[in-house]
Amino acid sequence: MTTKQETVKVGLVGFGTIGTGVAKLLLNEKKLMAQRSGVDLVLARIADLDTTRDRGVPKAMKILTNSADDIINDPEISIVVELVGGTTYAKTLVEKALNAHKNVVTANKALLATYGKELFDLARANGCTIAFEAAVAGGIPIIAGIGQSLQANNIQSIRAILNGTSNFILSTMEETGADYDATVKEAQRLGYAEANPALDVNGSDAAQKLAILAHLSFGAIVNWKDIPRVGIDVVQSVDMYFAKQLGYKIRLLGVANNTKSGLELSVSPTLVKQGTNLSNVSGAFNAVRVVGDAVGNVFFYGKGAGELPTASAVVADILDTAIGRTAITFKTLNLWGDERPAAPLRNPDDVEGRYYLRMDVADATGVMAQIADILAKSSISIASLLQYGNGNGKSNGTVPMIILTHGTNEGAVNQAIEKIKALKCVKGAPVKLRILD
Amino acid sequence: MTTKQETVKVGLVGFGTIGTGVAKLLLNEKKLMAQRSGVDLVLARIADLDTTRDRGVPKAMKILTNSADDIINDPEISIVVELVGGTTYAKTLVEKALNAHKNVVTANKALLATYGKELFDLARANGCTIAFEAAVAGGIPIIAGIGQSLQANNIQSIRAILNGTSNFILSTMEETGADYDATVKEAQRLGYAEANPALDVNGSDAAQKLAILAHLSFGAIVNWKDIPRVGIDVVQSVDMYFAKQLGYKIRLLGVANNTKSGLELSVSPTLVKQGTNLSNVSGAFNAVRVVGDAVGNVFFYGKGAGELPTASAVVADILDTAIGRTAITFKTLNLWGDERPAAPLRNPDDVEGRYYLRMDVADATGVMAQIADILAKSSISIASLLQYGNGNGKSNGTVPMIILTHGTNEGAVNQAIEKIKALKCVKGAPVKLRILD
Repeated sequence: MTTKQETVKVGLVGFGTIGTGVAKLLLNEKKLMAQRSGVDLVLARIADLDTTRDRGVPKAMKILTNSADDIINDPEISIVVELVGGTTYAKTLVEKALNAHKNVVTANKALLATYGKELFDLARANGCTIAFEAAVAGGIPIIAGIGQSLQANNIQSIRAILNGTSNFILSTMEETGADYDATVKEAQRLGYAEANPALDVNGSDAAQKLAILAHLSFGAIVNWKDIPRVGIDVVQSVDMYFAKQLGYKIRLLGVANNTKSGLELSVSPTLVKQGTNLSNVSGAFNAVRVVGDAVGNVFFYGKGAGELPTASAVVADILDTAIGRTAITFKTLNLWGDERPAAPLRNPDDVEGRYYLRMDVADATGVMAQIADILAKSSISIASLLQYGNGNGKSNGTVPMIILTHGTNEGAVNQAIEKIKALKCVKGAPVKLRILD
Repeated sequence: MTTKQETVKVGLVGFGTIGTGVAKLLLNEKKLMAQRSGVDLVLARIADLDTTRDRGVPKAMKILTNSADDIINDPEISIVVELVGGTTYAKTLVEKALNAHKNVVTANKALLATYGKELFDLARANGCTIAFEAAVAGGIPIIAGIGQSLQANNIQSIRAILNGTSNFILSTMEETGADYDATVKEAQRLGYAEANPALDVNGSDAAQKLAILAHLSFGAIVNWKDIPRVGIDVVQSVDMYFAKQLGYKIRLLGVANNTKSGLELSVSPTLVKQGTNLSNVSGAFNAVRVVGDAVGNVFFYGKGAGELPTASAVVADILDTAIGRTAITFKTLNLWGDERPAAPLRNPDDVEGRYYLRMDVADATGVMAQIADILAKSSISIASLLQYGNGNGKSNGTVPMIILTHGTNEGAVNQAIEKIKALKCVKGAPVKLRILD
């Protein structure tokens, strides 16, 4: 451009993994950013409590401060990037930024899944915007994909692998045959799982992302804690073995179905048919399959986490905010807005599907009859039943029994599981996984 | 919204398959469109030479005219949707629309790949926009994906299945074992191939789409006719057989590699490893794998053609144009603009890769020595060689010989093929396919 470019100043709060990626792109790729946006995008300030650690971005050290207020109080900064994570300080920071009439870019799914309405209302009240492409599925453009590119569709369903840690653990268990605990330790050693991986492996992280996608796609305002969720911590190597025998892989799926009876949402380890796109997602990758009434089946796949993949999405949001595209998107999507029609949620007990049940049962006669009787009384029909005798000498008197049900509903399965759990011949709680056909 | 919505009037030229889909979405889903855009989007006029055929959209018949001038001359229509196809009348129409200061939405890859610069310059001169999501990969949001969502990346490579007809024919040959000619007839019967499928099966359609992606991703201004291309009409059932034995599937791939020595572009039937995302694309689906320097590998998959999938993309463009997002995108992308840096093209002869060669050779001694000698003199190293004797009694005195090369370059392979073709012991021209590893 021969005309002088407008300058847009950006402040970044949180100089961790993703923050480092964002700083690298904004500071080291200035020419590309100027060419792509037509504006002179300046990373003016970075705030982090740790102002000494070397993140490998020399230019960043000169603009580093330990006080986010240096960003909030700088009238020249018009975009604040929140990358601190969590829902406490991050919330305060975003509120401060919006009240100072700054636009916000965030990668914080927990924050939006918990305080989306509050923060979006505050943004609207201040004439500001919030962009959050990186909050769901990292580098995969699923927010823009659903919110913009598929806008001519009524979204019918979503099947998504949204937690890279869980997917890494599941696909590693599948490849190595190792059990859950050992695989988590290996994932921690390789940096794919945090010291406390609870939010990742118990399905909470995936539920938060699914809640955001459900709001974007269906208008549903849902507390992510209300989404029925099962974590991968119930999955053992024996499940991997049986799933493989039956022609499936196990993936932690977030599922949304927009049915005439309401919106069904769930997060669960799920048996996915071998050879399908979702079953082929290995390691720390994420994927989202969306079905729209016009477009049909669309599948997105890419890195769901990591420094530069996530920074790719954050910086796209920064550019969109700088050039005004976000302002239009924010207004037309009207997320968590009062006038947005919301899909009603279906009672989770009514959700239909097929299930995989694994229980440790006494290696004795009559066991199968008792379990079959319970299932029959709950009107659950058995599609397959596998029981392996223990010829391996390792038995503690129990053997795994695997049941694949025909189509039933979640309430009936939960009811049957409670009854099965109470049987003397069953050790511990049965494990329930979903089946995607 | 309680405030009165702005009205945006749309004129549609071309009431064929995609036009019918667009009319259905705009006329039958008015409430959804208003909710998604915040404007009252009115399909005011449809022009088509055939004003009598029933397309199953009753509301459309009242606004149907046989003269596109009724749209061009209507000052209230601000968006013209060009769905007539081809590069002759379509060009005149788009020029008329731009000169009448109307924004254009088109699904016409041939038009943009041929006259992109001319039309985009005209749009800029008139202060108008052109949107074309549907021109590449139908319902897959690849234009927005690369142009917006991956804007923080230097794009490194693209691998794309861009022609649904070719993919349908290849995957059907693979499943049925039928030969090329019979499969084309079947595809025509099912509506997946046109009466004259030449532009689809000879790689031209894929080359046009690849030229557009190459401009979007790398700034390269390339005449699509300059892209080296091989069509699927060279692929025979014997190739399907050998590819399968070797662990590959054959797909018509558009490839772009942004290397230090320049941009490599090609369209060719390619051996793709079984089990990869690209090899799993069957039937009339399309897919695009993009590698960005920040985001890494991102994969998009969906329907590349058809009434409603393509209309999904066209209507998203109409909405984006109506709400002003296209104006920003059009300005910042500055496609076919003078100040956009263009990647230089690499000499196709220098492009490196591995190749699959199939030749019909005399079932006689000394043949292999002659061919091996030619390859050695072109510095082409053989990775695998398969030759099957003809025990089937059907021989015409020749048997297929398959050679998989190690890494070499296109020029050397083409040179060797010319020499092999001249051998008396070789019948016809050798078939050359690429190998993607």
